[in-house]
Amino acid sequence: MTRPLVVQKFGGTSVGTVERIQEVARRVAEGAQASRLIVVVSAMSGETDRLLKLARALSPDPLPRESDVVVASGEQVTSALLSIALDARGVPAQSFLGHQICIHTDDAHTKARIRSIDSARMFAALDAGKVVVVAGFQGVDGNGNITTLGRGGSDTTAVALAAATGADACEIYTDVDGVYTTDPRIVSHAHKLERISYDEMLELASLGAKVLQIRSVEFAKRYNVRVHVRSSFNDEPGTWVVPEESNMEEVTVAGVAFDRDQSKITLTDVPDRPGLAARIFSPIAAKGIVVDMIIQNTGAAGKTDMTFTVPRVELDAALRIVRDVAREIGAGDARSEGDITKVSVVGLGMRSHAGVAAQIFETLAREGINIQMISTSEIKVSVVIDAKYTELAVRVLHDAFLGAKETNG
Amino acid sequence: MTRPLVVQKFGGTSVGTVERIQEVARRVAEGAQASRLIVVVSAMSGETDRLLKLARALSPDPLPRESDVVVASGEQVTSALLSIALDARGVPAQSFLGHQICIHTDDAHTKARIRSIDSARMFAALDAGKVVVVAGFQGVDGNGNITTLGRGGSDTTAVALAAATGADACEIYTDVDGVYTTDPRIVSHAHKLERISYDEMLELASLGAKVLQIRSVEFAKRYNVRVHVRSSFNDEPGTWVVPEESNMEEVTVAGVAFDRDQSKITLTDVPDRPGLAARIFSPIAAKGIVVDMIIQNTGAAGKTDMTFTVPRVELDAALRIVRDVAREIGAGDARSEGDITKVSVVGLGMRSHAGVAAQIFETLAREGINIQMISTSEIKVSVVIDAKYTELAVRVLHDAFLGAKETNG
Repeated sequence: MTRPLVVQKFGGTSVGTVERIQEVARRVAEGAQASRLIVVVSAMSGETDRLLKLARALSPDPLPRESDVVVASGEQVTSALLSIALDARGVPAQSFLGHQICIHTDDAHTKARIRSIDSARMFAALDAGKVVVVAGFQGVDGNGNITTLGRGGSDTTAVALAAATGADACEIYTDVDGVYTTDPRIVSHAHKLERISYDEMLELASLGAKVLQIRSVEFAKRYNVRVHVRSSFNDEPGTWVVPEESNMEEVTVAGVAFDRDQSKITLTDVPDRPGLAARIFSPIAAKGIVVDMIIQNTGAAGKTDMTFTVPRVELDAALRIVRDVAREIGAGDARSEGDITKVSVVGLGMRSHAGVAAQIFETLAREGINIQMISTSEIKVSVVIDAKYTELAVRVLHDAFLGAKETNG
Repeated sequence: MTRPLVVQKFGGTSVGTVERIQEVARRVAEGAQASRLIVVVSAMSGETDRLLKLARALSPDPLPRESDVVVASGEQVTSALLSIALDARGVPAQSFLGHQICIHTDDAHTKARIRSIDSARMFAALDAGKVVVVAGFQGVDGNGNITTLGRGGSDTTAVALAAATGADACEIYTDVDGVYTTDPRIVSHAHKLERISYDEMLELASLGAKVLQIRSVEFAKRYNVRVHVRSSFNDEPGTWVVPEESNMEEVTVAGVAFDRDQSKITLTDVPDRPGLAARIFSPIAAKGIVVDMIIQNTGAAGKTDMTFTVPRVELDAALRIVRDVAREIGAGDARSEGDITKVSVVGLGMRSHAGVAAQIFETLAREGINIQMISTSEIKVSVVIDAKYTELAVRVLHDAFLGAKETNG
């Protein structure tokens, strides 16, 4: 009988030193007794930043093609080092770089997307009894240029390999031990989820729970890859990210996420004419800046105020664009206002449980927390609040939907 | 008219820091005004050692295939960094790794030999007005595995690229400013050679004048590549390594080289029977140990003493082998004797000038330096002497053949 095929991915912290690589080798050697293994590795922690720093010391705006060649070396090194460590333990292993197993991507350097993978060479190595060790994060475009998949891209490599090889599971080893109902640093009684659906994970990931790169979850969803997020420092089971199951909606809310990295821009006195929203948001989108939430308050005399959020790191660039447009269309001033946080409540159960939004508003109102903006989806309610209430809001929402701390005595 | 095509190679010291890479970019940008350029780079100095140390920390005997993947990353990084630095100066550039321009080698990992290079992609980039930057030291075998060419392999990459593209010259930029008549640390009035033939350079290189990797000189000789060895820290012309020219023999001696890294083994009382030399030297060769000089003193009673030299780092391994053989063939003891140095006088002119060997012996005898072993070739005389006389011997031989220091006033 064929042994199961499992993809394991180890992040930068897990392979950050020689000792940790040896620990990963120990764990892989153990897993290799029961399964055929494809292991994906990130660069040693800090290495990608060190390499980027070298590139940026030579140019404020390094050529993306060359930047990819520089940083792809990080995963190249760890893939070979882990193979050496496995061999030293008597476990046959072989490293593969992106181009060696034809991880074909588009040519969008620094944020390429995987198009196809040729698994023949991996299966040949697996059939020869070897552990296959793959350099994460990297691919090759149609012209043989090295590409990288963007931050956290090794997660995507792992899930894509699992999909391409029809693996039985994809284990993501990381420095947290699973997906929590919220950040345990804020709510000490937050608990680890046993299972979570792809859609819930997507909402949580995009909202700042940085456990899995969002694109890897999209990939997992599209190809039905069962992903197990777990700690590389212990043997406890973590959280399974899986296809939606019929009983999942019994739990209304899966988690409470928050994102402190957004900023809010308000443009006043926008003439209320058709097409002006496009005039404002098209040039922002053209710069690759993602606008998240938008509200519009119609005022007096055919003028409206337009408020929207952008990532904080792109606030200045967005403000410049909006001010240019404001002059052209005869709008008023554009300004960013205050420190904000976006807090989101996520859960499949919202579909069938009415009143979740109302309960959120009531819970926050009870604490005197003003809601500045609201957006909702089928399985998520997000609110923008003053940043100073972040912890309080997360705590009361977690307690309202996911259980308060048991009181002692 | 097509501009000349030049290959330039910069070693690890020349690209050892961000500042030095910028200095190389300045020099390349200058050269690019007059010529089409293919630039070969080594890893940043110290990087190859750092990477090998990581590999050896994981295994006393790292898999050669994986070791190559690890160390090849060093040149990968500098090739892209130099391209970034050139672009920042407004000079279009593109990096190429071994596999991207099909530097096909055999599969002898860590010491592979180049078989072929496909120059089409380089010419396409040159025709597009780009400087081509190639990661030195690396290639790819018939199965797409990364290979490396051994220490100093970037010199070989540069010469091989010059041969494959029919370049007009190959400039090797290094931390010395050319080939000297001997080590200037020993003879202060040693002078830089303007030109030297391939054969003289091969003898000097193999004897310890570590300016150019020996294999790169063999390559240059085979394909008639004109190599210019020069300093990366100034604009002075260096030494041209070129095909032999008719007037070269007018200069009797090109240089005096020495090698302190040899050891001498003497095996006593070897029965004087045919085939015993093969019994002794075959198992040594099988271990990849290069025996350089051999002498045999026939003694009394059908016994001889056999003395030969091996690289000092392999002395212990060679002694073990010889002692095993000695027991089998009924020879006496094998022992290594004293610290030795091999001093060599090299020059094309020896072919036509009789008496060079005699003059060497006289010169050394005058100083009371005993010659323990002698070997000669068409353009070289080597002698083994007591290591304590190294500097004295080099000085008096240099003065005898290459001119003494002018005496002041």
